[in-house]
Amino acid sequence: MQAAILRDKRIVVDEVPDPTPGPGQVLAETLACGICGSDLHMVQHLDRLVNGAQAMGRPFPFDPKRDVVMGHEFCAKVIEAGPDVSEVKAGDIVVSMPAVLTAEGPKGIGYSNEYPGGYGERMLLQSALCRKIPDGLDPRHAALTEPMAVGVHAVAKSGIQPGDAAVVLGCGPVGLAVIAALRLAGIEPIVAADFSATRRELAAGLGAHEAVDPAQEPAIEAWQRVDGTKSLVIFEAVGVPGMIAEAMRVAPPATRILVVGVCMEDDTIWPMLGVNKELTIQFSLGYAPGEFDRTLGLIADGEIDVAPLITGEIGIAGVPDAFETLTNPAAHAKILVRPSLG
Amino acid sequence: MQAAILRDKRIVVDEVPDPTPGPGQVLAETLACGICGSDLHMVQHLDRLVNGAQAMGRPFPFDPKRDVVMGHEFCAKVIEAGPDVSEVKAGDIVVSMPAVLTAEGPKGIGYSNEYPGGYGERMLLQSALCRKIPDGLDPRHAALTEPMAVGVHAVAKSGIQPGDAAVVLGCGPVGLAVIAALRLAGIEPIVAADFSATRRELAAGLGAHEAVDPAQEPAIEAWQRVDGTKSLVIFEAVGVPGMIAEAMRVAPPATRILVVGVCMEDDTIWPMLGVNKELTIQFSLGYAPGEFDRTLGLIADGEIDVAPLITGEIGIAGVPDAFETLTNPAAHAKILVRPSLG
Repeated sequence: MQAAILRDKRIVVDEVPDPTPGPGQVLAETLACGICGSDLHMVQHLDRLVNGAQAMGRPFPFDPKRDVVMGHEFCAKVIEAGPDVSEVKAGDIVVSMPAVLTAEGPKGIGYSNEYPGGYGERMLLQSALCRKIPDGLDPRHAALTEPMAVGVHAVAKSGIQPGDAAVVLGCGPVGLAVIAALRLAGIEPIVAADFSATRRELAAGLGAHEAVDPAQEPAIEAWQRVDGTKSLVIFEAVGVPGMIAEAMRVAPPATRILVVGVCMEDDTIWPMLGVNKELTIQFSLGYAPGEFDRTLGLIADGEIDVAPLITGEIGIAGVPDAFETLTNPAAHAKILVRPSLG
Repeated sequence: MQAAILRDKRIVVDEVPDPTPGPGQVLAETLACGICGSDLHMVQHLDRLVNGAQAMGRPFPFDPKRDVVMGHEFCAKVIEAGPDVSEVKAGDIVVSMPAVLTAEGPKGIGYSNEYPGGYGERMLLQSALCRKIPDGLDPRHAALTEPMAVGVHAVAKSGIQPGDAAVVLGCGPVGLAVIAALRLAGIEPIVAADFSATRRELAAGLGAHEAVDPAQEPAIEAWQRVDGTKSLVIFEAVGVPGMIAEAMRVAPPATRILVVGVCMEDDTIWPMLGVNKELTIQFSLGYAPGEFDRTLGLIADGEIDVAPLITGEIGIAGVPDAFETLTNPAAHAKILVRPSLG
């Protein structure tokens, strides 16, 4: 099958062997798969990540010397069921948490050498984790279940309650997912910040009460302008060095900082500042199965309108260029890979 | 009066004017005052702290070009009451939170140019904040109310509950205060780590179930040896660069890291690690008035035995040397300044 492959720290398009479903697995055809910032980071920081895991004494999820087909934000059509599959059948259109449960433990779909992700034509999915998408839901929209669930989880993890206020630093897909989940949680005001006008517009569409250009008005000043009194949670959704320190700098005393942007490089903070303000830094990762399912329902019911987030659609041949484009992503939120586009 | 003074980034002994009590204030004679690690840091990192406050747009608590008499862990005898004082009278032996409430806001006793701390012979105290020490309590022990309250607050702030386990990194006065408070909170096991045998002995005396030399057995391994299953809170009570990163490195997933050691320098962390483990970093500062009062009661009732923590007693003339000694503090926990010793 054709796939965009992480090979020698670059993305290349080539043929790879078709996978064969084992017990409890299905072979599925990729309908749509979002390009995730984590995959961009994976390409940029592969050596650092491999060395970091080694320093921790932890196995890295894949052998970087061998091919990996990334892509973990997908919607797919079941082609063929392996042995012992009862949950889904050929023809079903499904989403799934990106994992396969093997005898050696869970393997990440898109982050393993054995289980190709949605940047290829076909994938193996764990039938028990597959969720048929509701009738009438566009598979392209269903593919955003995974990134939107990250926001649902981060908001739950933060412990934010109605009556609190939120500042969201960064309106990429993760920040936008956080904004959507904050709005559903009844938070007001939600103050979002991004340098990109496109992304600020998306933020406002998803429920941000203020969406500011930090070059014009820092997010914390915008929050002070419209509120300034409620208990505040700052969501760091940029994920580059310096952002946690910046959040600590602007945070009022006793603020919680929810870090959902994944900074893969070393970062510098000034602990004294955290102490003086008694800040809390809470890191958030992924989502629980129930949050994934709930997010699929929210998208299907129109509670989260993901359509505007899709700012590009490409075939597999376009993936290498898209990885370049997204390193300077001002005009984009989510680019979908659709193998049927060639 | 005689005082050990922070002047030109050094500690010198000299005469300074006696302070005069204003309304609501009393003049008090210092009986005993602990030397706090924060004061050592203040001398070492003064420029960094002044510049840092400036970068934040915040006023620094004092003018570093003028004299400051530090010392905020004190017990004192009231000599003379100023106008409008009803709470205490001459002869009362008191402790107090180290603050004076002025028209311009609170000023820190020991961290202001106007309100000398306990490294001088006499202080001004806010009568409303003074607490008479219970009959029979040694003023030297009462002077440890302030640092012990830091531990009581940190343990409360961490949200740790009976059934959880604790690892305490560093058994200086702050770590020891945390250990005492953990023991009172019914936490088991409490695993403490310090390179100093003296401090490990103090840790065990205050209630640590294990007190290990990290050069022989890292704290996290000692915890795995004696428990390894309970929900864990790691208390970082060292306060030097690299400790937060180290706590993040060894922490099991979902661990809370309570930072009570005050690192005044820039520090490096790897956010990716926090994300992957969904860690929480909670910074803790000081204590609330109720916690201060409760700690005084705990010391008076013998619930916290502070006597072994006092590893040295010096006069004001000995303060400059003590600041040198404490930069390599393996043999010490708390050194008390007692002006009556000369």
